[in-house]
Amino acid sequence: MAGDRVEIVEVGPRDGLQNERVFIATETKIAFVDALARSGLRRIEVTSFVHPGVVPQLADAETVFAGLKRRGDGPRYSALVPNARGLERAIRCGVEEIAVFTGSTDGFVRANINMTVKQSLACFESVVEAALATGMAVRGYVSTAFGCPYDGKVASRQGIAVAERLLELGCYEISIGDTIGVATPGSVASWLDDARQSLPLDRLAMHMHDTRGTALCNVMVALEHGVRVFDASCGGLGGCPYAPGASGNLATEDLVYALEGSGCETGVDLQQLLAASRIIAVEIDHMLPGRYYQAERVHAADPSDTSLQPVSD
Amino acid sequence: MAGDRVEIVEVGPRDGLQNERVFIATETKIAFVDALARSGLRRIEVTSFVHPGVVPQLADAETVFAGLKRRGDGPRYSALVPNARGLERAIRCGVEEIAVFTGSTDGFVRANINMTVKQSLACFESVVEAALATGMAVRGYVSTAFGCPYDGKVASRQGIAVAERLLELGCYEISIGDTIGVATPGSVASWLDDARQSLPLDRLAMHMHDTRGTALCNVMVALEHGVRVFDASCGGLGGCPYAPGASGNLATEDLVYALEGSGCETGVDLQQLLAASRIIAVEIDHMLPGRYYQAERVHAADPSDTSLQPVSD
Repeated sequence: MAGDRVEIVEVGPRDGLQNERVFIATETKIAFVDALARSGLRRIEVTSFVHPGVVPQLADAETVFAGLKRRGDGPRYSALVPNARGLERAIRCGVEEIAVFTGSTDGFVRANINMTVKQSLACFESVVEAALATGMAVRGYVSTAFGCPYDGKVASRQGIAVAERLLELGCYEISIGDTIGVATPGSVASWLDDARQSLPLDRLAMHMHDTRGTALCNVMVALEHGVRVFDASCGGLGGCPYAPGASGNLATEDLVYALEGSGCETGVDLQQLLAASRIIAVEIDHMLPGRYYQAERVHAADPSDTSLQPVSD
Repeated sequence: MAGDRVEIVEVGPRDGLQNERVFIATETKIAFVDALARSGLRRIEVTSFVHPGVVPQLADAETVFAGLKRRGDGPRYSALVPNARGLERAIRCGVEEIAVFTGSTDGFVRANINMTVKQSLACFESVVEAALATGMAVRGYVSTAFGCPYDGKVASRQGIAVAERLLELGCYEISIGDTIGVATPGSVASWLDDARQSLPLDRLAMHMHDTRGTALCNVMVALEHGVRVFDASCGGLGGCPYAPGASGNLATEDLVYALEGSGCETGVDLQQLLAASRIIAVEIDHMLPGRYYQAERVHAADPSDTSLQPVSD
């Protein structure tokens, strides 16, 4: 583990912002993504080519993509694509990588994209084929792998079967999501032990939510199992533990701090990451919930109070 | 690790409440401790026999101790004792166990108890001796083991030397504190590797703060090293990531959820623990920051919203 290179997929601009109530101005989104790029992140999911009526927060996908600074040595920008119509839009924008999103359970997938898991996979068959034909890379999401808000407990084989199918379709990587943040070190270990029977673990990413505080523990367990790619959202954007609907996205800062503190290399500069978080922090209607972000915010507010907490232990 | 019994030392009533701005009524404190006892916790640090002028929040230590339901099969109640005067008060209350508190760094210990580390150990010599002579058990705290708000980085030998001395004095267990929440899986592993040269790891407890989100990862690393006792504060009481002075006490619920989810036995009932947190939650002037507590609160507020977060992943 120590000395290993770990790749972080920043999902704040897409997964984060689509779960915020406030619409962020297009130019602010672009500045946010540019700041994320400056932090050293190599992969950023920028937006979603979903119908604007479904996710109005990301209705400006085309303009955001058009406004991004693209450099040869810059990060790879991707976008979520729900269907053939979304793919057409992504192609017109010159997007290099798309992601398709489904889940382990019919209850959740139906609530999100109004299809069963099977229907979603059937729908993605032609989408992925067309994307690959244009030279795009395709990533797959398998949400609710550890628990579903509608269907309850989820057997590992459900998510594993979906991941297998997405790999067959041509996805180069599958992101396994703990959508409601119920996974624990034990359940992650057992899921990955089951998965390794039929899935190459080096083609998996983990998308952990910190809803119950276990996201980083779960990352550590996945690291021990050989997973080297993790999704996270700058500042914990998209979730607030103090608000109903808290999604609890794992904060990128927390992930970087823990990984670097475990001897892993992320290539990400924490101060630059905080600078990116601050761009969005002043726009949204609640505090960014990331722990590292909060600790630094408190410290920055009063640098002379170096104690954080006197008369304590 | 799996199947192992892990002991939790609940420090919410003392470490938590002393860091809250609001004074909690004595009867509420008693109800809180009784509720904690019902959750199955076996060790609870109830209060502090510190001068009431220094920590007014705990000025009612005697009344709280007098009001506790004591049962033969109940938990062990302890109290912090800063000096000979505090010990006298604890003895009059029939306290079975006391804790003495010092740290790894002069900067922090001076700010807290106006002594150098060396002076604090000299002071505790007679306190511990007198306590042991009355049949009390004595626990030692070594704070700032991983970093100090005043002295910066802390070499492992500093905390280890203090822990050695406290064991020599007769403490049965030493709680190693990451006071400002800077420890990472790597630094905890390296600290414990150094410690095991001279300290019996089965007489150590870890007191991790979640200031930067790493507390549970750090617990997992300590578990792998053989530590089996961890301090935590119900609901994360005593720290709020949204307020200046955030201490970030690890929330007992988060610890129990992660430990049980790693196959460890804690003997603690999560629902009863939440019931204890709720007693205090309505009294303080901010949200309890514990993640599990927040997730359950959101769910309880609207049980029909089983999604926590639709249109997400």
